[in-house]
Amino acid sequence: MISSRHVCLRTQAAALNRDITGQTANWRRCYELSCRGFSQSSVLASKSSQKPSKHVVFSGIQPTGIPHLGNYLGALSNWVKLQKTVEPNDVLLFSIVGWHALTLPQDPVSLRSARDDMLAVILATGIDPTRSILFHQDHNLHHTELCWILNCLTRMGKLRRMTTWKSRLAASRNANSEDDVDESLLNAGLFTYPILQAADVLVYRATHVPVGEDQRQHIELIRDLADTFNHTFKNHGKPPVFPLPVYVDTPSKRILSLKDPSSKMSKSSPDVASRILLTDTASQIKSKVRAAVTDSMQGITYDPVSRPGTSNLLTILAACTDNNVTEVAKLYANKGHGHLKSDVASAVEELLKGPRAEFEKIRHEKAFLEDVARKGASQAMQYSGATMDEVRKRIGLA
Amino acid sequence: MISSRHVCLRTQAAALNRDITGQTANWRRCYELSCRGFSQSSVLASKSSQKPSKHVVFSGIQPTGIPHLGNYLGALSNWVKLQKTVEPNDVLLFSIVGWHALTLPQDPVSLRSARDDMLAVILATGIDPTRSILFHQDHNLHHTELCWILNCLTRMGKLRRMTTWKSRLAASRNANSEDDVDESLLNAGLFTYPILQAADVLVYRATHVPVGEDQRQHIELIRDLADTFNHTFKNHGKPPVFPLPVYVDTPSKRILSLKDPSSKMSKSSPDVASRILLTDTASQIKSKVRAAVTDSMQGITYDPVSRPGTSNLLTILAACTDNNVTEVAKLYANKGHGHLKSDVASAVEELLKGPRAEFEKIRHEKAFLEDVARKGASQAMQYSGATMDEVRKRIGLA
Repeated sequence: MISSRHVCLRTQAAALNRDITGQTANWRRCYELSCRGFSQSSVLASKSSQKPSKHVVFSGIQPTGIPHLGNYLGALSNWVKLQKTVEPNDVLLFSIVGWHALTLPQDPVSLRSARDDMLAVILATGIDPTRSILFHQDHNLHHTELCWILNCLTRMGKLRRMTTWKSRLAASRNANSEDDVDESLLNAGLFTYPILQAADVLVYRATHVPVGEDQRQHIELIRDLADTFNHTFKNHGKPPVFPLPVYVDTPSKRILSLKDPSSKMSKSSPDVASRILLTDTASQIKSKVRAAVTDSMQGITYDPVSRPGTSNLLTILAACTDNNVTEVAKLYANKGHGHLKSDVASAVEELLKGPRAEFEKIRHEKAFLEDVARKGASQAMQYSGATMDEVRKRIGLA
Repeated sequence: MISSRHVCLRTQAAALNRDITGQTANWRRCYELSCRGFSQSSVLASKSSQKPSKHVVFSGIQPTGIPHLGNYLGALSNWVKLQKTVEPNDVLLFSIVGWHALTLPQDPVSLRSARDDMLAVILATGIDPTRSILFHQDHNLHHTELCWILNCLTRMGKLRRMTTWKSRLAASRNANSEDDVDESLLNAGLFTYPILQAADVLVYRATHVPVGEDQRQHIELIRDLADTFNHTFKNHGKPPVFPLPVYVDTPSKRILSLKDPSSKMSKSSPDVASRILLTDTASQIKSKVRAAVTDSMQGITYDPVSRPGTSNLLTILAACTDNNVTEVAKLYANKGHGHLKSDVASAVEELLKGPRAEFEKIRHEKAFLEDVARKGASQAMQYSGATMDEVRKRIGLA
């Protein structure tokens, strides 16, 4: 079953690659437009522009199983917003990045299931596979091909300065601080994953990358590598191969643990009551919110430093109802924690009930999920195939 | 032209992958046989065995342009010998490893031409593409896919202990010692290339790897990674995915520079008279050998320490005539350097004239070379596709 899917993918990719030769000129024109650069903005639409630019947006998410509320409000809901706000000719690529998951030990059975869970969740939250290109990273080998090429352009010193591998190791070990991390666990995958991330983005000549604040350092590396490649392999008379992608400042919310508001809501915390999963029922949501750690002060105020638990509930409420958190806080100034918690639980349930029902519906439609993934990968390979044809020519491997 | 070749490759690979599902059982049986291990030997044939094992041999060579005599006697001539001595059902894979070349700066135009040169040279020296699988590494993306997966299993400390990246940097800079190497030039590709090398070998579940003595440390890493993968992703009831490949002790000759017999014959030496190229004419060979640095001692003896230049000529003569070097030395005991040099030049010309003529004939047969490369890659992908289907299942990415 799986084998035949891979075969189909390759056959389709071959067919698509055949088609794309005719499309290359058009793609290049679009890319040139996108190369001119845009100001960094949270909304990509450039309504005033006379010649609408084609933006190429790439974003990835790891297959961590059922996402929690923090994942949803931090990434997935932004993808859906992007899908609603971009121009018709903008390209949206959303990828489940399984190869990145391998940088920390994974149980193969859980990983296999987590990939399907994540695909179903993304669809359930509203990503439309006929509008956005939704695919598994590991179905498109161009990512690892470009990763190797970029490896050869990345100085070791640059990678050493990346701090995220330390925090990923720390998070995976539930360490309190990055200093507690045992570096002997560091593998070459975890050390070099920012290069694979650069390949993920550049293989589609993406112009915009919506990521969390903690990944901003990586976008700098991606721009650096794009620039290094363009300079090292310049061909006078031809435009540079890669645009320098810009960081998209998504209005992401940092959702904290319901049980320990000094840390982020996390999949790896041993206390399941610390997080709300996208598949939690109304009563599970209610009981987890009711048991959330707050404080014993009178009234409700938004004060993340001295009242982290209370402020976290306000953040969740504001995010679920798409309101400003300080405005929301004002409404509860004279109310108690019980009242706030009841409204938070209702708002979360209101937000999640649609995606939850949709998820339950499609999660076990194996053939449908496989079809979405297969088509998404074929579409993705249309773009990456054109990029890699050009990359191979420039470096002398074709 | 190139694009369409890539398309063809993919289409062929898809077709071949379709075919291979039926062959998997057979392949697995062969692999299981090969898994049982053999004693390390310079000749793979196991004539006494009742159940003949299928050996899978992988070896790679970088596209460095026209090889010199040192490359020929050190690697290429051994490939031809292997092709003559293995059993009919043994698999031979010979690859031009373009991705490895990228670990040091390359001029794209030279690299492109060097790839074709190397393919033509290998064919000219006697590798038969209907018997051996001859292909460009960069035509088979399974190598970089497996490389990423192995990256995630390789501790950084292991890579730090590899010494070859230092010697490669030193050689590329013509540094006298590895201590003179400027480590700021170290890129992630050069640091991690032993992992790509492991992928090159393991993606074909190769059982035997003929390489130079200086690469022996890398074979240990490959065995280590194969073992780690087999243990990490074991599936009871199924055989381990990878055999532990063994180092094949090829009778390789260390051919020294004709101008500075304290160092190896090298492509990067600025003095062209220090090396004999496979395309050198009879008169070029004669004049380079005549000008070779020897010593002023009377008579000829084989003494690599105190008479490196003279001994190098004896090594070359013995290698070209397939004789033992001490036996050859005895024949020249009472003769002079002039006599020895004249015989060396004749022996080298005798060895090279056939390959040289063949090379001149096929080097510009672009369509033929492309056809050989394309078919070789398709055949290679038959094997690697089966391996990767199994690898993906084991790790949870399929």
